[in-house]
Amino acid sequence: MTEKIGLFTGSFDPVTNGHLDIIARASKLFDKLYVGIFDNPNKNYLFSLSERTQLLQEDLDKFGNVELLVHQPELTVRIAAEKHVTALVRAVRTASDFDYEANMIYFNREMTGVETVLLVAQPELAMISSSRVRELSGFKQDVSRFVPANVNKSLEEKFGRN
Amino acid sequence: MTEKIGLFTGSFDPVTNGHLDIIARASKLFDKLYVGIFDNPNKNYLFSLSERTQLLQEDLDKFGNVELLVHQPELTVRIAAEKHVTALVRAVRTASDFDYEANMIYFNREMTGVETVLLVAQPELAMISSSRVRELSGFKQDVSRFVPANVNKSLEEKFGRN
Amino acid sequence: MTEKIGLFTGSFDPVTNGHLDIIARASKLFDKLYVGIFDNPNKNYLFSLSERTQLLQEDLDKFGNVELLVHQPELTVRIAAEKHVTALVRAVRTASDFDYEANMIYFNREMTGVETVLLVAQPELAMISSSRVRELSGFKQDVSRFVPANVNKSLEEKFGRN
Amino acid sequence: MTEKIGLFTGSFDPVTNGHLDIIARASKLFDKLYVGIFDNPNKNYLFSLSERTQLLQEDLDKFGNVELLVHQPELTVRIAAEKHVTALVRAVRTASDFDYEANMIYFNREMTGVETVLLVAQPELAMISSSRVRELSGFKQDVSRFVPANVNKSLEEKFGRN
Amino acid sequence: MTEKIGLFTGSFDPVTNGHLDIIARASKLFDKLYVGIFDNPNKNYLFSLSERTQLLQEDLDKFGNVELLVHQPELTVRIAAEKHVTALVRAVRTASDFDYEANMIYFNREMTGVETVLLVAQPELAMISSSRVRELSGFKQDVSRFVPANVNKSLEEKFGRN
Amino acid sequence: MTEKIGLFTGSFDPVTNGHLDIIARASKLFDKLYVGIFDNPNKNYLFSLSERTQLLQEDLDKFGNVELLVHQPELTVRIAAEKHVTALVRAVRTASDFDYEANMIYFNREMTGVETVLLVAQPELAMISSSRVRELSGFKQDVSRFVPANVNKSLEEKFGRN
Repeated sequence: MTEKIGLFTGSFDPVTNGHLDIIARASKLFDKLYVGIFDNPNKNYLFSLSERTQLLQEDLDKFGNVELLVHQPELTVRIAAEKHVTALVRAVRTASDFDYEANMIYFNREMTGVETVLLVAQPELAMISSSRVRELSGFKQDVSRFVPANVNKSLEEKFGRN
Repeated sequence: MTEKIGLFTGSFDPVTNGHLDIIARASKLFDKLYVGIFDNPNKNYLFSLSERTQLLQEDLDKFGNVELLVHQPELTVRIAAEKHVTALVRAVRTASDFDYEANMIYFNREMTGVETVLLVAQPELAMISSSRVRELSGFKQDVSRFVPANVNKSLEEKFGRN
Repeated sequence: MTEKIGLFTGSFDPVTNGHLDIIARASKLFDKLYVGIFDNPNKNYLFSLSERTQLLQEDLDKFGNVELLVHQPELTVRIAAEKHVTALVRAVRTASDFDYEANMIYFNREMTGVETVLLVAQPELAMISSSRVRELSGFKQDVSRFVPANVNKSLEEKFGRN
Repeated sequence: MTEKIGLFTGSFDPVTNGHLDIIARASKLFDKLYVGIFDNPNKNYLFSLSERTQLLQEDLDKFGNVELLVHQPELTVRIAAEKHVTALVRAVRTASDFDYEANMIYFNREMTGVETVLLVAQPELAMISSSRVRELSGFKQDVSRFVPANVNKSLEEKFGRN
Repeated sequence: MTEKIGLFTGSFDPVTNGHLDIIARASKLFDKLYVGIFDNPNKNYLFSLSERTQLLQEDLDKFGNVELLVHQPELTVRIAAEKHVTALVRAVRTASDFDYEANMIYFNREMTGVETVLLVAQPELAMISSSRVRELSGFKQDVSRFVPANVNKSLEEKFGRN
Repeated sequence: MTEKIGLFTGSFDPVTNGHLDIIARASKLFDKLYVGIFDNPNKNYLFSLSERTQLLQEDLDKFGNVELLVHQPELTVRIAAEKHVTALVRAVRTASDFDYEANMIYFNREMTGVETVLLVAQPELAMISSSRVRELSGFKQDVSRFVPANVNKSLEEKFGRN
């Protein structure tokens, strides 16, 4: 049996319970799962790369077969080739996400032959996104249902909480 | 490493190149892939169960890790539990398929905890379905681009060809 | 202030937690809410009209301003006119429901001028439908998370439970 | 009977016939309807806040139970809580609007418990948006079918008309 | 210049203002437009083939370059080849129609190389369908806004009118 | 027979095989087809107007009835009126494109009465867009399957190729 290797990438600014659910589920599909965190020097993040890396690493510690990768925003498919990845993992939340994902999947396969599997977000987590978390935190709203405890604490330190 | 096992089910009335592409791709994702062929005695099929089984088996012979299962139309999730399946595999062709699939995935997980991965059909295969193949064959049209050679031959014997 | 009156209709074969959530929410929007249960003599129901009426009535007792109506499958808009309804209430679960609802709303307004408000199902209830409940119960699956206790008991009596 | 209070918010840059149709319909659903006009100092509007307020107020005068609110771009839900709002009102034009609205509705309810009702735009008004009106006016096109007379006059003064 | 020939087909049970708008628009796109009316002996129509043909012919008389074709429910593409058709014409009303149409277009082209153009229904006509007209007429509702005068008269004779 | 004239417009930054397929198909629908290339001085293009014009002209030479128009980013409908255009041609790739196109079509007709026909992109070309081509070229990927030879050469000169 060849080792089955997955790769799930994102900005994780910040990591949410939605991301962690996909990671937990993907970690059971593959023998090894890489989680790739992008850094794009031209983009404005709420959390710096080192903050995002630390928060995500803390939340990944409980998974035995998950390894965090930090990389420049190259084409994901290059990382996939280098790490002998069996399939990329993408989360899809609504039908309106689908056409975008299908397009990415097509070009990733055309460029390098890499496979992609879609995992459908659980209904109670499908509404959450990092951008919504940032927006609500900016209004000092309680987002503790949507993010892991360490992220919640960091957001509270940045913005305060009503 | 636990063995990773997939299950892809359908009526396969008849099997198309679209099905075979999904099976080929899924066979690389898992250590072992089951392909489940349903028989519902209350349903009218173009091909009998034994015809469908024979046609599909011929096309699966080239895959080293794919095994055909024939079963009554029970809940797929029961077969999944019995065979220690890691994940069900579903093909999705268009955004309009998505909400239906998301609903099935939800109930399959709620009932038994089984995971489902979606594979997006390749653009040139996304248009093909068994029902379209049956309809076009009924009009004696050439469907040889859409089905494997053995299915094409069986359709020609049933309907003739212009 | 004119009395604000709502009307929510369905087959309720059987009533689900999804229906009851919409009814609870709509009962707060209107001074009075009618819940209309259809009977179409040409249609096959799992539960008879008197069973459906009894189950639904039991679940509506806790609402102070909700009244059950039983009627032949006439155009809903006629009931609406007769009862001086301010607006019909419809639940919508996914984007793929939307175009169908928009069409119904258009013709209901064109025919009689009646208004319709859409309530979006909560994510954790959006997956539930009466047809899925009937199908799962037919496979003796536990549907107690999806229906009120009295419906669950009735389904268990009809089908048994694994 | 508790008073039923609605809240419909927007930038109204400028108010269109589509907005006014939703306001007219919502004013019949509720005993009182607030219309909230946002001002975001960081955003570029075609019409200033005082222009937008004046234009909208002129068009709301004919409604007996509609009151205009001007506010900073806080979370709408805070205004809703302060004004004891029964439900937010949102217009939805196409299926592609739906997932976005469903997401907003979810978070508004999660944050504060506020309800939201969707009204489907009438087909002949569903195409209109403030941004399209601004774009067409910029090309000196006649938009008098799409906006109230006072807005049409203001647009003509700003841009001229072919 | 080669003659440009279009073909628009349907059951026309009965023809609606929506169909007639598409026919009027398509008649300007092509030098000649065929309108094909299907007869499927296995299908239940409200109007017989001769009734549908007569009603449609009356409404097509005003178009100088439109010719009615009556035919068995063969593949439309065969008629298209026989009549040297430049393109099939299809009406599309909503995004949810699109994937179905795209599939039909694909197979029509694959089978015979025939082109298809889509015309988007006007908003105020996009809600109308023959099936909705039949349903509303069955409830004795006034459908005179949705169908030509001769169809309205025939529906009234069949069903009466409230 | 009046001359049937089509107009297909875009930025063509750069022209892709998807554009050329639509142009080839549209050139058969009309006696004459104009292809309009926009220049918006406020927009950042990868290729200058003269580069885009030259590349596109080279690829249009083989069509006997296609003429290239270069123009400022006025409303397309003005060009259409000036050139006595029978219909605008738009390509549509997915259901998620549809609502946007339907809106544009509506306003173009409302403003000037001009008709629009939609051509559905072929499945194997539906994934391609100029923006994806620019993005992939920026990563030095081989895009020769997606663009004509002259564009491929120009992209290679700009970016190099892995």
